[in-house]
Amino acid sequence: MKSISVRIAGRPRRYTVRVERGLLDHVGARLRRDAGLLPGTPVALVTDRNVGRLYGARVERSLRRAGGAVRRYTLAPGEPSKDLAVATRLFEAWARDGLGKNAIVVALGGGVVSDVAGFAASAFGRGLSWVAVPTTLLAQADASIGGKTGVNLKAGKNLVGAFHHPRAVYADPEALRTLPARSMRAGLAEVVKMGVVRDPSILVRLTSLARRGLALDPRAVAPLVHACAVSKAWFVSRDERDKGIRRALNFGHTVGHALEASEGYRAFHHGEAVAVGMVAELRLSVLELGLDPIAAVHVEALLKALGLPTSLKRRVKPSFWRAVLRDKKRGRAGVRVVLCPAIGKAKVIALPSLTQLERVVGSLVRGR
Amino acid sequence: MKSISVRIAGRPRRYTVRVERGLLDHVGARLRRDAGLLPGTPVALVTDRNVGRLYGARVERSLRRAGGAVRRYTLAPGEPSKDLAVATRLFEAWARDGLGKNAIVVALGGGVVSDVAGFAASAFGRGLSWVAVPTTLLAQADASIGGKTGVNLKAGKNLVGAFHHPRAVYADPEALRTLPARSMRAGLAEVVKMGVVRDPSILVRLTSLARRGLALDPRAVAPLVHACAVSKAWFVSRDERDKGIRRALNFGHTVGHALEASEGYRAFHHGEAVAVGMVAELRLSVLELGLDPIAAVHVEALLKALGLPTSLKRRVKPSFWRAVLRDKKRGRAGVRVVLCPAIGKAKVIALPSLTQLERVVGSLVRGR
Repeated sequence: MKSISVRIAGRPRRYTVRVERGLLDHVGARLRRDAGLLPGTPVALVTDRNVGRLYGARVERSLRRAGGAVRRYTLAPGEPSKDLAVATRLFEAWARDGLGKNAIVVALGGGVVSDVAGFAASAFGRGLSWVAVPTTLLAQADASIGGKTGVNLKAGKNLVGAFHHPRAVYADPEALRTLPARSMRAGLAEVVKMGVVRDPSILVRLTSLARRGLALDPRAVAPLVHACAVSKAWFVSRDERDKGIRRALNFGHTVGHALEASEGYRAFHHGEAVAVGMVAELRLSVLELGLDPIAAVHVEALLKALGLPTSLKRRVKPSFWRAVLRDKKRGRAGVRVVLCPAIGKAKVIALPSLTQLERVVGSLVRGR
Repeated sequence: MKSISVRIAGRPRRYTVRVERGLLDHVGARLRRDAGLLPGTPVALVTDRNVGRLYGARVERSLRRAGGAVRRYTLAPGEPSKDLAVATRLFEAWARDGLGKNAIVVALGGGVVSDVAGFAASAFGRGLSWVAVPTTLLAQADASIGGKTGVNLKAGKNLVGAFHHPRAVYADPEALRTLPARSMRAGLAEVVKMGVVRDPSILVRLTSLARRGLALDPRAVAPLVHACAVSKAWFVSRDERDKGIRRALNFGHTVGHALEASEGYRAFHHGEAVAVGMVAELRLSVLELGLDPIAAVHVEALLKALGLPTSLKRRVKPSFWRAVLRDKKRGRAGVRVVLCPAIGKAKVIALPSLTQLERVVGSLVRGR
């Protein structure tokens, strides 16, 4: 598939996003071409235990073949690794190993690995180059592009981080073969989101795959990963710092984040919470912006066909509304939410009151 | 004195450096003008215990008068606060206090305070605006301008950090009244450095002040602080990331850093080590680049007149040379050092061998 070029306004350097089957074996050679990897360059390969076991050796071999002096740094799998203490341990290990400013960090794994490794790369030596090799659908289709890196604090998620763009993103859809079905589905929620806010053809193609039972097939999904990367690059190059149009990518996330926060992050995968959030925010778009109700129903049906949740078993807890209002503090004119006036478009709206939001969140409860 | 505008290539925003007597009482009003401080904006005032006791209340009052919702965060004084654990405590305190992305961090103090507060500002919420209010001569004349922020690791100094420019720098020369004479002298070493590598008029004026016994008088030194800030801004706007011409500012620092590392950071104030380093590197400039030996002797005499060390009591330890060679790893063609072909000019040189450097370092030992 055609490589994608991400250009950030006011920055001299573009970077390349490649979505290609078999890319895991060619990371080194690609890096030589895309980022001028020189023989002897120190390469810090950061991965987690699971991904490292599956793909670490292949990527390491390819980096060595390209002349990289590779060391591997392995994190525990899962969200708890997205922590300042883990970044600190990376700093200390890199310092011990004498990593200089010419080193390149390669983040092999899902969002947690690239968030923490990318953040560590942003701060070590005031900024090392890094490369994302995403291995989950969520990371390939969305999170690995755009330069957002960061870690959680006890007080909240993603509170500490940096905008630090990778030199390149290499997504190998083959890596999705080993992804658990639940994670694959959760990633598809963000694919649907990209269809809703930017590229309706994604919804058409995904609906067709779901009908043919191919929505979890990495090979069949690969062109959609590419389409999502194109859309993500479109948003990021227009609004690097997430102050305007890039916020469209938060569609489904006002309700989704509040669900994660109030139900606990274990109850929902991120993509599952976003799926339920999109249902609510599509219904709100019908009420507030006159979105065609048929379109909203089609997207709901697609989410259901993908095996994603579209309703809640019981009413949301009071902490759900506290989480929604915590977002409010950040805006001035009320809770800000991304709505969809028509499929393929998005608009940030400040809700003057919570009445309509309460109504659509209430409508999520099954059997009501 | 005229305000100085720092413009970084490829960045839309300039920032302002002001050197003005009495500025400590007008930080709030200035911020309203320079950085659009709005009523109700959360302001995190970071300072250390000593500076906080002396100037905290005045700055806080001025920020409140301008409408800022000020909270103060006080660090222990001294280099140990320049630590990732201290930055982490700031992150946690800011999160607890609900600091949003619209907050402004004000760093009131010397280099340690602005390094750690600036770094914390760079990472919290992926980047808060910050303002430097430097209170030492070293920080006013040099360190507070240029966006370098960072903390130390056990493995070495400044290993973790960010390039994160302040929105404004407010230097009040009156604050130098309370600075210990030894710190004032150490700061003058960097003033001399700026004269050597960029602006010879600084040397002429400082020589005259020293002759009249006014070199430690904040009022007399203020115009030189301004001149240094102009020169620093000149370097930074041409080479933000310290990859070319900005390296001139490392004059005296190859030998200076190695002295600090081998003799322990307590034996020398940074500026004292740089003073000795400049003597060595001026002599090397005579040998390698044909610098007029009379010019070198004049600068040495000025350093001596300022009460700065220009010689060593005994031979350097073997660890001195290890520290010099550790720098070498970073370059490819030998130890890189900044030399001075003529006063007001600088050039980065890769030394093919250490012979001449050994000779000039040997010449530093008193009575040899």
